[in-house]
Amino acid sequence: MSDKVRVCIVGSGNWGSAIAKIVGVNAKRLDTFEDRVTMYVYEEMIDGKKLTEIINTTHENVKYLPGHKLPENIIAVPDVVDAAKDADILIFVVPHQFIRGLGTQLLGKIKPTAVGLSLIKGFDVAEGGGMELISHLITKHLKIPCSVLMGANLAGEVAEEKFCETTIGCRDMKIAKTLRDLFQSPNFRVVVVDDVDAVEICGALKNIVACGAGFVDGMGLGDNTKAAVIRLGLMEMIKFVDVFYPGSKLSTFFESCGVADLITTCYGAFFGSCAMSSNVLILFSQHTGGRNRKVSEAFVKTGKTIKQLEDEMLNGQKLQGPITAEEVNFMLKSKGMEDKFPLFTAIHRICTGQVKPQGFLDCLRNHPEHMQTFS
Amino acid sequence: MSDKVRVCIVGSGNWGSAIAKIVGVNAKRLDTFEDRVTMYVYEEMIDGKKLTEIINTTHENVKYLPGHKLPENIIAVPDVVDAAKDADILIFVVPHQFIRGLGTQLLGKIKPTAVGLSLIKGFDVAEGGGMELISHLITKHLKIPCSVLMGANLAGEVAEEKFCETTIGCRDMKIAKTLRDLFQSPNFRVVVVDDVDAVEICGALKNIVACGAGFVDGMGLGDNTKAAVIRLGLMEMIKFVDVFYPGSKLSTFFESCGVADLITTCYGAFFGSCAMSSNVLILFSQHTGGRNRKVSEAFVKTGKTIKQLEDEMLNGQKLQGPITAEEVNFMLKSKGMEDKFPLFTAIHRICTGQVKPQGFLDCLRNHPEHMQTFS
Repeated sequence: MSDKVRVCIVGSGNWGSAIAKIVGVNAKRLDTFEDRVTMYVYEEMIDGKKLTEIINTTHENVKYLPGHKLPENIIAVPDVVDAAKDADILIFVVPHQFIRGLGTQLLGKIKPTAVGLSLIKGFDVAEGGGMELISHLITKHLKIPCSVLMGANLAGEVAEEKFCETTIGCRDMKIAKTLRDLFQSPNFRVVVVDDVDAVEICGALKNIVACGAGFVDGMGLGDNTKAAVIRLGLMEMIKFVDVFYPGSKLSTFFESCGVADLITTCYGAFFGSCAMSSNVLILFSQHTGGRNRKVSEAFVKTGKTIKQLEDEMLNGQKLQGPITAEEVNFMLKSKGMEDKFPLFTAIHRICTGQVKPQGFLDCLRNHPEHMQTFS
Repeated sequence: MSDKVRVCIVGSGNWGSAIAKIVGVNAKRLDTFEDRVTMYVYEEMIDGKKLTEIINTTHENVKYLPGHKLPENIIAVPDVVDAAKDADILIFVVPHQFIRGLGTQLLGKIKPTAVGLSLIKGFDVAEGGGMELISHLITKHLKIPCSVLMGANLAGEVAEEKFCETTIGCRDMKIAKTLRDLFQSPNFRVVVVDDVDAVEICGALKNIVACGAGFVDGMGLGDNTKAAVIRLGLMEMIKFVDVFYPGSKLSTFFESCGVADLITTCYGAFFGSCAMSSNVLILFSQHTGGRNRKVSEAFVKTGKTIKQLEDEMLNGQKLQGPITAEEVNFMLKSKGMEDKFPLFTAIHRICTGQVKPQGFLDCLRNHPEHMQTFS
């Protein structure tokens, strides 16, 4: 047994595989880390072969990241306990509905000194409605601290090693350095902040704003209007964090997880940068921003319901933005604060058919941001 | 003589005419203001008729904003002293090279109690090199206080009355209310901040960042990279203000003049929303963002010089981004701070041929933002 830091990636979808390329190279390159990085892979049969075996022999995740070689020190493991039990760092990158199940499987089976890092975007529904942060859920279920990594990181472009930035939210500066070293590369630039909750919340709320950007595109309203919606969305993100998770810093919203991810989500291509991947890849991507914008645009143009469009455009998968908007609306209603967040509220009402998309801007005209008094 | 506030618009180009639509309606609607708003129009002959006469009879600026009716209380005046002499509010919206000349003409001829508002983007070159803010120049030459108005406001879309936001920077909260009332409309939403210099500097520096966004587009680098460049550009804008005009607030950069205008400039269409206008309109627009991005993209793709592209794409007009980059570089050099602003510095060096566009990202990889130390 060495004293080197052991890493496990829990998840092997499009984003998990893209990040495995970076983590694998750094684990091998740096003395701090054990070379061998385990990757929990939900076992499936591909043309009569086990996916784990394919990955471990060809070093390619042929289902979720075809065309990219994973470093050979990334070892696919079909049993999550086997994959995770010796790890000092557990990187969670699975669809968020699987987190509770994984928590049950892993509790008591992992190192008590392990630390988590969540790459999962979106909230979990708390008991009684409202939202719970995924990193909090991990801490609660596994009894380990949990940091987060979020940013303007479309998975396909990260896999292609195009230059980008990311944000790690981590409360413990000693862990922060280890995490930074594990992810920093010439084309994946890391900034660490200690505002963990704000970083994670940005990753979820941006999908609501992306729906608003999609409405604007659907109505053909132009660049000024879209910029206004993005900015008002950002202001409501800041205010939401301030109300429900007070104590964060304004500067966090200038990080990649904030303004940069929001821009990518509201302007980035859904059928652009992802077009090289198969349909399956798009569906499994953690980066749902482009599709929130795109489906919302279609929502306005076609007059169909979100449900219909999910069936037609997403093969029945749920769109993240409307779900998050509903969870957020539950929180706002409980505090009697819907009118303080007119953009989030309008988007929820439009997605659920209570307000016509054409009423979107009416909801914004009396935004608190524009209601200054001068004394 | 009434006690009502008299307004003069100094300038009648594309942006000046678009803003005259809003100002004219509000001056007429609100009791605070004198109905009659003068607009200084540089006299030209259009098909044998004077432009001022055309505007005053047809209420259309057929040269710079064709297809839009101006309110009938907007009165075109060919003599700038006549137009400005009774005004309490002087709205400056002319190409910035004309400001010194206008200052000479107007000094001593305007009300000593008048206040200025600059809608002019870009810096003036100070004596000995470096930059001077246009609002400072107005104050210096005319001995009046000067506020600014900047935001994500493509002129064509404002003229079409599409929803947008804007930012007024004003130090005196009593004047602020009057200015807000003069511009606020259902589709032109105003936020006032007291950080006047920061608001104005945002309007100039964004054009440098837009060149960077254009390089990224030219190299086909994708959405993650573009978001990173926009974010790093924003961080350098904040830092630049902090170093050269200290005392501003971080929140100002979240206003329309900051992040929203930057997004529009780096993503907004040059041949999109402007395509409805004639070539002349594009050339005279104060909103040079789209074209900074577009010409910079062509710079990478064609290998031509900026000068060649100005001749080919802009009919010989100068591109604002490279000029501002040069002025900023002069300031940075004088403080020995080029390496603290690697994005601004790289863009200047690329525009002047000292560095190849392909070297752009190398300049960003060791950005101070990514060089955290942990203790």
